[in-house]
Amino acid sequence: MAYYQSSPSAGRHFLQIPGPTNVPDRVLRAMDNPTMDHRGPDFGRFGGQLLEKVKQVFKTSGPVVIYPASGTGAWEAALVNTLSPGDRVLMCETGWFAHLWQEMAERLDLRPELLRTDWRRGADVPAIEAALRADRDHGIKAVCVVHNETSTGATSRIDEVRRAIDAAGHPALLLVDTISSLGSIDYRHDEWGVDVTIAGSQKGLMLPPGLSFNAVSAKALRAAETAKLTRSFWDWRPMIASNATGYFPYTPATNLLYGLDAALDMLAEEGLENVFARHDRFAEAARRAVRHWGGAGAGIEIQCDDPRHFSSVLTAVRLPEGHSANALRGIILEKFNMSLGNGLGRLNDRVFRIGHLGDFGPLSLVGALGGVEMGLAAAGIPHQAGGVQAAMAYLNGNA
Amino acid sequence: MAYYQSSPSAGRHFLQIPGPTNVPDRVLRAMDNPTMDHRGPDFGRFGGQLLEKVKQVFKTSGPVVIYPASGTGAWEAALVNTLSPGDRVLMCETGWFAHLWQEMAERLDLRPELLRTDWRRGADVPAIEAALRADRDHGIKAVCVVHNETSTGATSRIDEVRRAIDAAGHPALLLVDTISSLGSIDYRHDEWGVDVTIAGSQKGLMLPPGLSFNAVSAKALRAAETAKLTRSFWDWRPMIASNATGYFPYTPATNLLYGLDAALDMLAEEGLENVFARHDRFAEAARRAVRHWGGAGAGIEIQCDDPRHFSSVLTAVRLPEGHSANALRGIILEKFNMSLGNGLGRLNDRVFRIGHLGDFGPLSLVGALGGVEMGLAAAGIPHQAGGVQAAMAYLNGNA
Amino acid sequence: MAYYQSSPSAGRHFLQIPGPTNVPDRVLRAMDNPTMDHRGPDFGRFGGQLLEKVKQVFKTSGPVVIYPASGTGAWEAALVNTLSPGDRVLMCETGWFAHLWQEMAERLDLRPELLRTDWRRGADVPAIEAALRADRDHGIKAVCVVHNETSTGATSRIDEVRRAIDAAGHPALLLVDTISSLGSIDYRHDEWGVDVTIAGSQKGLMLPPGLSFNAVSAKALRAAETAKLTRSFWDWRPMIASNATGYFPYTPATNLLYGLDAALDMLAEEGLENVFARHDRFAEAARRAVRHWGGAGAGIEIQCDDPRHFSSVLTAVRLPEGHSANALRGIILEKFNMSLGNGLGRLNDRVFRIGHLGDFGPLSLVGALGGVEMGLAAAGIPHQAGGVQAAMAYLNGNA
Amino acid sequence: MAYYQSSPSAGRHFLQIPGPTNVPDRVLRAMDNPTMDHRGPDFGRFGGQLLEKVKQVFKTSGPVVIYPASGTGAWEAALVNTLSPGDRVLMCETGWFAHLWQEMAERLDLRPELLRTDWRRGADVPAIEAALRADRDHGIKAVCVVHNETSTGATSRIDEVRRAIDAAGHPALLLVDTISSLGSIDYRHDEWGVDVTIAGSQKGLMLPPGLSFNAVSAKALRAAETAKLTRSFWDWRPMIASNATGYFPYTPATNLLYGLDAALDMLAEEGLENVFARHDRFAEAARRAVRHWGGAGAGIEIQCDDPRHFSSVLTAVRLPEGHSANALRGIILEKFNMSLGNGLGRLNDRVFRIGHLGDFGPLSLVGALGGVEMGLAAAGIPHQAGGVQAAMAYLNGNA
Repeated sequence: MAYYQSSPSAGRHFLQIPGPTNVPDRVLRAMDNPTMDHRGPDFGRFGGQLLEKVKQVFKTSGPVVIYPASGTGAWEAALVNTLSPGDRVLMCETGWFAHLWQEMAERLDLRPELLRTDWRRGADVPAIEAALRADRDHGIKAVCVVHNETSTGATSRIDEVRRAIDAAGHPALLLVDTISSLGSIDYRHDEWGVDVTIAGSQKGLMLPPGLSFNAVSAKALRAAETAKLTRSFWDWRPMIASNATGYFPYTPATNLLYGLDAALDMLAEEGLENVFARHDRFAEAARRAVRHWGGAGAGIEIQCDDPRHFSSVLTAVRLPEGHSANALRGIILEKFNMSLGNGLGRLNDRVFRIGHLGDFGPLSLVGALGGVEMGLAAAGIPHQAGGVQAAMAYLNGNA
Repeated sequence: MAYYQSSPSAGRHFLQIPGPTNVPDRVLRAMDNPTMDHRGPDFGRFGGQLLEKVKQVFKTSGPVVIYPASGTGAWEAALVNTLSPGDRVLMCETGWFAHLWQEMAERLDLRPELLRTDWRRGADVPAIEAALRADRDHGIKAVCVVHNETSTGATSRIDEVRRAIDAAGHPALLLVDTISSLGSIDYRHDEWGVDVTIAGSQKGLMLPPGLSFNAVSAKALRAAETAKLTRSFWDWRPMIASNATGYFPYTPATNLLYGLDAALDMLAEEGLENVFARHDRFAEAARRAVRHWGGAGAGIEIQCDDPRHFSSVLTAVRLPEGHSANALRGIILEKFNMSLGNGLGRLNDRVFRIGHLGDFGPLSLVGALGGVEMGLAAAGIPHQAGGVQAAMAYLNGNA
Repeated sequence: MAYYQSSPSAGRHFLQIPGPTNVPDRVLRAMDNPTMDHRGPDFGRFGGQLLEKVKQVFKTSGPVVIYPASGTGAWEAALVNTLSPGDRVLMCETGWFAHLWQEMAERLDLRPELLRTDWRRGADVPAIEAALRADRDHGIKAVCVVHNETSTGATSRIDEVRRAIDAAGHPALLLVDTISSLGSIDYRHDEWGVDVTIAGSQKGLMLPPGLSFNAVSAKALRAAETAKLTRSFWDWRPMIASNATGYFPYTPATNLLYGLDAALDMLAEEGLENVFARHDRFAEAARRAVRHWGGAGAGIEIQCDDPRHFSSVLTAVRLPEGHSANALRGIILEKFNMSLGNGLGRLNDRVFRIGHLGDFGPLSLVGALGGVEMGLAAAGIPHQAGGVQAAMAYLNGNA
Repeated sequence: MAYYQSSPSAGRHFLQIPGPTNVPDRVLRAMDNPTMDHRGPDFGRFGGQLLEKVKQVFKTSGPVVIYPASGTGAWEAALVNTLSPGDRVLMCETGWFAHLWQEMAERLDLRPELLRTDWRRGADVPAIEAALRADRDHGIKAVCVVHNETSTGATSRIDEVRRAIDAAGHPALLLVDTISSLGSIDYRHDEWGVDVTIAGSQKGLMLPPGLSFNAVSAKALRAAETAKLTRSFWDWRPMIASNATGYFPYTPATNLLYGLDAALDMLAEEGLENVFARHDRFAEAARRAVRHWGGAGAGIEIQCDDPRHFSSVLTAVRLPEGHSANALRGIILEKFNMSLGNGLGRLNDRVFRIGHLGDFGPLSLVGALGGVEMGLAAAGIPHQAGGVQAAMAYLNGNA
């Protein structure tokens, strides 16, 4: 039984929500070291190296600001550093997290304009281009896209979004939320001309929650000079100034930085491209299981229905009408000691989500899919048995 | 050598900055448990108990909001939840941290009015009362006081500040920063009528940095309804609404919450009043050492020169003109593997600070004072030897 | 990648050898506490409680001697405390570990008499009875049985052995090796009249290797008074004398004792009978997978072919002639990051062993079986696909 | 309060017994990694490297056998591998541990011949030479010396013992117990012609108890071929055979081996000669404190009264008649949360022992000495105050 589990369950808990993910022992052990003086010379050396090292995972040569705060804060940071009250922002409502970001924009006195989807695909790139072309006086100051929509399992094509903005000849900033994709799905801050990349610690970076990030382009830094939203804690400028010598303007989350250092080393040792390929492979295996369960008219579906937008970090599974995804998750938690993600917003109780990201190997994936399949049976949800077998057949051919 | 120390030094590092403090093994081990599903049933139980338990250390029965962010953020939260652009706030500039808070207020479009001190004592209570009496139309919306000024080692009398506000019959909110005092120096949110108490994890709560707190009065909650500063991440209302069932509106810093749970248990086991008495005793021992070093005309002084404001968590030590506190700290770090706090702002290089708070026993105090005394000798700073002996004589009579 | 893994492999290693088993985080964290003074008053209290608590897992009210040594040492201890040079001992050669124990007996100047099996079942109880009946002058001083033979996956019936000894009216001591069964398979030191029960820390007790145990009957204690094999480190008498006050005659393995304390708490929280039932259920699921793989003439078999002796802690799997179990294990380790047990002695390369004991849940079992099934395919070993599915069907009906 | 402390005491416990010593966090964290397959390929690589690395701390190029057992076992191993029943061994009774070793020899059917001391100095080298010269028929098979006698704080001169044996032209083996000296006091297995060096994990090697060592000369290996004491668990031969490929013949204490690896790295990073110099310096500081306390007729003495034999790892302190060392230790434990070593055997209650070895820095030493000085005052034991000051004066001139 884990530290705060209320009832004894032998064996390791399967934490298959799409984040926080299973934190590797190596990261936990790094975090478990004594806190150090954040103003002493050893910290300067450590911080300086870490601030360089973290750039690689964003594929950027520019500054990456690290906040001692969770990912929601990094959203706010991206907005308040670049925008002014009343600014129009174009937001792609791809699901629940995009929706939450939009609500935040409204609370911060911005004027979001929504491009809606049916929550079964990524951002609508032609619609972005059309909206920007229509905005002849360039009143739209930023385009906001969630790279991987954690509520639906749909990954937007940021490269295409970039091309759409360029095609429209529009000067809007491009702000991208990679909270659930960074370190798991290929992402290229510099190459794709992203202005602010927002990230968090608790998904592909394999850390507990508590750190968040803004990778910042030169264009975004210029915008920060004139942006008028009030900001203090989130202000990039004192951060970047202090970071130059490896320090932070206020107390950093030292022990999480130890963990970040270890996690970045692990990603580098496996090789980022290998990490991405592993996630792609596991996701395809998961989808084969889901399709098998839904076969023969059983009606179980992958929530994302555009294969170009399939997410490699999670699979949201849609149950047929009349079946409760929440009841299923409850059964699986109780009988099999596995946590799955719940359906969010309009998907509540219709969808459950299988996280297959972070520090995760093929046999844990088989176990997780086995838990789902046994749960479907236990919950009396019609399905075609054999999904695990289908996943294994795929994994074995490609592992 | 510790994890990130650049050169090998046998033995445990003495982290005697006034925070972050030495994190107890029990807290590190709690934090080292696997991250759990922050939306699952076990989390609700855990969170609900923790949110109740944390109230005791604030001595409040009202809500305590826990941010997955460092203490600077909790300052911002206190301001943006209660105030509107252009609001006047009365701030007591007792030292560097009070000064930073004032700068933050300015960046957030507030109009701070400063009550200055010479940085050698706590808040000037008669001046607060006078300023409030002079403010007949009640334009001042809040009084902001740092309970323990970490840059100078002076503790303000919050009970007296409360009486001064009441005596002036003024409706201003009372906002108090207890970042370096909570859990170490007696503090009473409810009894002293504080409206927002700001706290952080990395001092008396014996955690690494990364959590911060707002204890909130009913009056402050009412103010939040009409306050117009923009806020989203820091907004109390969704926090308090989610907390009612033990959850958080966005991903909490789970592993730091594990550590908080363990730290609160440790404080309860020792007994809060015993914890305070221990800090008082150690602080008096430290002052006796400093006075001894400064005796016989050596000119070393305690920075705080009002005994009613002596801090029980740190002692700032003032060197005579012509001696560099930073050089001294460098020697002590290199030769004795101890980190001391530097002088901040106008005290840079004039003052060094000895933290004696958190998870700390008498022999560690003797060791720390020994390191200072050996450092004074090694740095060639005139002093009367025997300070450690004076501290021991006091400790032994009172331990 | 784990601490000492040579190549990066994402995700947790599947340690499915039949011991050492997966050490739970809670046990690792307990072991990770600072070493304490083994002669101080806190140790006496801790040791006293632990020495009582450990009796429950043996189901004994008599003394349990704890050695700061691995299980092989506890074998030696059982022999040297009870026997004299030249003594005849009846040993049941049920597999590799029984064979090693016999070799040890020879090195210690004892005269083992072997009752052989074909390594596909537990001890031959009628043969024990016959041998004892034939020993009219009671020259046989001890009967030595391995409760769970880790090399073959066969569990001997200790209750039946006891009855056989009694039926023969023979005074021999009964020495039982429970190294791989204690805490996983039902075992009753007192009820079954065992004289010395030998155990180790690294299997059902969920600890790393480094502790071992002798539970000792009153009859065995009397034998120790006259036994003439030389002994010092292993001598029970100073151990039991020191243990009376909670201490040890020489330095105990303090940090492993912390872990033992935590592990015993975990077993008690789950309930020993629930632990046994869990192991029984998982073992039956594993056997169903193996039988499925071996179906349709594929020729894969369970090594133990007597269902009354099936082991609940491991399943040894026998490959058909012409296929290498070691090559299979190598492929599974490389492709799927799982360690399986090798075939020992005459079973080398013919058999591989799946450990399903200790801190282990149903989804880890599904993952482990999935790794075997994918490995069989990858190694080109003929098998009927669907074993995982068969295991899941069983687990789901009984979980 | 530490994990098993019965009453809450803030701050870190001072574990100043002469072993087990304070285990560094880095070692605890290494031990806290998952147990691995001790028969898999990663173990072979790890074990092979470790078995080479460990030789450096013994200053040997020969084999070092590592037992999953505590130090007492390594004593037994040294004897049973090299000797036969009835063999005469020359033992230097320098204190309690030498006495225990002699008792073990008797239990193992050896015939120890004792060279006694007054327990205030190391081994009597001229007496060794005389005894060997008198043994014309070479009936003495081994000379047994405790390098650092932990009960008295006296270090024997092994180099001189070697020369004495050579001068006598005697073929006896030289067996040396370095349990409390290895990794803290200069020691040279090869150069000094030692045949078996016995060591344990829990002192200078900075590990918890649970590992022990025999470094073995070629001459000792030859002796093992003909030695007739029974042995199985302790037998070097299967150990050395398995070690050739990095493995062990029975389950090793894997997690303690992880810790050993980390500890050896730490010693190498600091540099063994620096480690020795640090211990020498701290010991001299401790002695200056003791001499100061005993000055002005107070009568407190260093137990070792031959300066050539002063121990660098501990100082045993002798109280004047009529004062109880045990009562003093009780007071210090209760008031100052420090464990000191008790007087052993005939020194019980007359002597207490200050350990100053292992992972230990100057400020911890100052704290430890401060605890003793405050304890002397609290216990009403006459002493000259100022011992800490004397130690600091020395440390500061030499740190």
